Amino acid sequence: MAKDRGLTRTEALMDAVRARIANRALAPGDRLPSVRGFARTMGVSPFTVVEAYGRLEAEGIIRARRGSGFYVTGADLPPMALAGMGPTRERDVDPFWVSRQSLDADASVLKPGCGWLPADWMPQGAIRKGLRALARTDDAALADYGSTRGAPALRRLLLGRFADEGIAATMDHVLLTGSGTQAIDLICRLLLRPGDTVLVDDPCYFNFQALLRAHQARVVGVPFTPSGPDVSAFEHALVRENPRLYITNSALHNPTGASLSPQTAHRVLSAASAHGLTIVEDDIFADFEPAPSPRLAVLDGLNRVTRIGSFSKTLSASVRCGYIAARPDWIEGLADLQVATSFGGPSPVATELIAGVLAGGTYRKHMDELRQRLARARKDAADRLQPLGLVPWTMPRGGFYLWCRLPGGHDSAAIARRCMAEGVVLAPGNVFSVSQSAGGFLRFNVAQLDAARIFSVLQAAISEK
Amino acid sequence: MAKDRGLTRTEALMDAVRARIANRALAPGDRLPSVRGFARTMGVSPFTVVEAYGRLEAEGIIRARRGSGFYVTGADLPPMALAGMGPTRERDVDPFWVSRQSLDADASVLKPGCGWLPADWMPQGAIRKGLRALARTDDAALADYGSTRGAPALRRLLLGRFADEGIAATMDHVLLTGSGTQAIDLICRLLLRPGDTVLVDDPCYFNFQALLRAHQARVVGVPFTPSGPDVSAFEHALVRENPRLYITNSALHNPTGASLSPQTAHRVLSAASAHGLTIVEDDIFADFEPAPSPRLAVLDGLNRVTRIGSFSKTLSASVRCGYIAARPDWIEGLADLQVATSFGGPSPVATELIAGVLAGGTYRKHMDELRQRLARARKDAADRLQPLGLVPWTMPRGGFYLWCRLPGGHDSAAIARRCMAEGVVLAPGNVFSVSQSAGGFLRFNVAQLDAARIFSVLQAAISEK
Repeated sequence: MAKDRGLTRTEALMDAVRARIANRALAPGDRLPSVRGFARTMGVSPFTVVEAYGRLEAEGIIRARRGSGFYVTGADLPPMALAGMGPTRERDVDPFWVSRQSLDADASVLKPGCGWLPADWMPQGAIRKGLRALARTDDAALADYGSTRGAPALRRLLLGRFADEGIAATMDHVLLTGSGTQAIDLICRLLLRPGDTVLVDDPCYFNFQALLRAHQARVVGVPFTPSGPDVSAFEHALVRENPRLYITNSALHNPTGASLSPQTAHRVLSAASAHGLTIVEDDIFADFEPAPSPRLAVLDGLNRVTRIGSFSKTLSASVRCGYIAARPDWIEGLADLQVATSFGGPSPVATELIAGVLAGGTYRKHMDELRQRLARARKDAADRLQPLGLVPWTMPRGGFYLWCRLPGGHDSAAIARRCMAEGVVLAPGNVFSVSQSAGGFLRFNVAQLDAARIFSVLQAAISEK
Repeated sequence: MAKDRGLTRTEALMDAVRARIANRALAPGDRLPSVRGFARTMGVSPFTVVEAYGRLEAEGIIRARRGSGFYVTGADLPPMALAGMGPTRERDVDPFWVSRQSLDADASVLKPGCGWLPADWMPQGAIRKGLRALARTDDAALADYGSTRGAPALRRLLLGRFADEGIAATMDHVLLTGSGTQAIDLICRLLLRPGDTVLVDDPCYFNFQALLRAHQARVVGVPFTPSGPDVSAFEHALVRENPRLYITNSALHNPTGASLSPQTAHRVLSAASAHGLTIVEDDIFADFEPAPSPRLAVLDGLNRVTRIGSFSKTLSASVRCGYIAARPDWIEGLADLQVATSFGGPSPVATELIAGVLAGGTYRKHMDELRQRLARARKDAADRLQPLGLVPWTMPRGGFYLWCRLPGGHDSAAIARRCMAEGVVLAPGNVFSVSQSAGGFLRFNVAQLDAARIFSVLQAAISEK
């Protein structure tokens, strides 16, 4: 009977959508209301909306793009055009905008908006040495699936680093994953249900939004300050929104480069404890810090805080591997989920290569040099951006990001679109902002700012009225 | 208001579960009813059950193991014990049983139940040569993220193979993924909603069940025959169950080794077309065939049939890479989903290595030798199993599986448990069976049957009363 009621509600929703398409309230290529939003508008459960959208998709009337919602189909639309359909502003602030432009850009494109270091800043010698060593390793490592939790050698190396920070973890606390993003995805699979609410910083790493949309989560932003999330806003959100999860970068936050203050760390963790909130601390920029700043995972001891990390930013983004440090009972469930969805752990070839590079002394030396090189690059970048009226919101203590405010009233999405036409990929503020309140900001990667052309193109785009 | 109704229903469900635990109808470690089943019993939507279970989990009363359902917690239960909790029989038929036992087995364990070839059967020379070549490749390939759809060189190689089969595909039809399993997972993310029904063969690859449970799909089995699925049962299921998806292996089916007949292929595809059903054809055993048998993807031309594949079975399971061949508009959505959930495509180091091996002539030569070696191994295995009363259900035309019926009335789960105690991992029939009707079968990997001890342990287990 509930099933029948469900079907009736579903059909009502389907008719409502068909009507909006008929009267052109929704045109081909338009994005449909979010599952959660539409559920509220129509006073039904998100599940009913999901079912209605799914059946309309089966009818070919709409097309699901889980990353970015549902769109009205149109036979005459070229596939690529579907990506960022909708109002112009919306196309620019699509959380996929920067990923697509920078991952698929050819060598001629300049990428001051991208999220990684130039290849020649990475420890190429150590990687090549590691590959030659791999060519001589045993058959099993080269041909077999890995163990479900990943190479013990690499997990042990991580435990050593955790111990240095004051986290007493065991092998049962660590799971190696295919990447840092896959690590967060597995945690979402374990803990989230469609319609659950997740807190993120506003601004936050744009792919958190894309990932959470893929899980049909409801994403709520907490205003971010130079010392971490605005604690009173965070506390209010806990009461008002009853979130299941909070995902954040504590150190060298993406996109601002800010790091959590001890007081904010303590208050955030206390509030989380009071409300039984689970926190995912994405720590992939850890090694860029001159000295470790406060970590929620350290204060908490891997109880309600789960740490994820990867080696993509400091060692290689081509050799994919990430990790999760969490409660052993969660690690067990996460390992099963990784078997179900990827079979086995990450590539043994990848983990053996990474373990080899980390074990050798070269990695520590590489990071020392990298930190110094980036300190210079951050200063140079600030000096070169200043004449354009671009001012860092905060001066980060490490890493490669500068979060800069544009001179009076400029819309970073419009500027990013102009620069894209000139072969320069920027990261406009609103791709990072759940509330769409960062239109006056751009995120710069100081390691990708060598070319003088970036500044002339940027200058022109800013001057353009 | 709908929200309030939802909460009331949710709380009612939570109380119902609490009551069952209180009166010991559900003991610590017991598995809770499936989301779908419980929704039906209680006359509510699966979404409500998911919400109730989620909140009971937050209270610590139950623990979610997405791969295998929800379990009543018990402070005194050791974490590992939770894995296969429930009645003894259930523990043996957990779809994770074989994965866990074989992936995490140490070198001393014999694995005639595992799903891959011994490392020394793989093209070690070509892999090592490829690694040495990688050590000399350009910086970008070693350090950068890959493009969102994966290395063009490898995608082009795949297009060439498709063309040989009669599939006219373009670069827009192909997406490289982190593994074959990840390929299917991405398709499920794009097309499935919680509670959707998915058809699988009965028996089928056990991880299909684990993966579909992670998507909260309702899994329905179709009886499998030596020429493919029982077509009239398939047609009935389409009418009765209105499935969203059918996942199958057309060639060298796992676990039976059977291949689809031309007539069955045509009828399955016709029925799918009549009901608007999407089919995922998992083709990872393709290269083991002496000559290609019928493929749904070929008959259909990648319209409603999506092909997935990987190189884990023939080249290396350590160098993870899979692919999806599907409609360009789906590939576009799948690429976005892969960015959201893994960031970027598969490891460029992995794809460059695989493309190098495939492009060289050695791979074709390796596969020719491998097919001959496996033909001998299949015959030898059948000859050695026959005296134990183990008879192949069908004699496969290729690959490394033999699906054998046990002598009179033996339960393969009990035998697998006995052999496990002796350090021999078997694959008991019911881990492959949605209907739990394959308890009289074992799946053998003929490439993992060298050790004489396997047969003595098996003999003892079968004789044991």
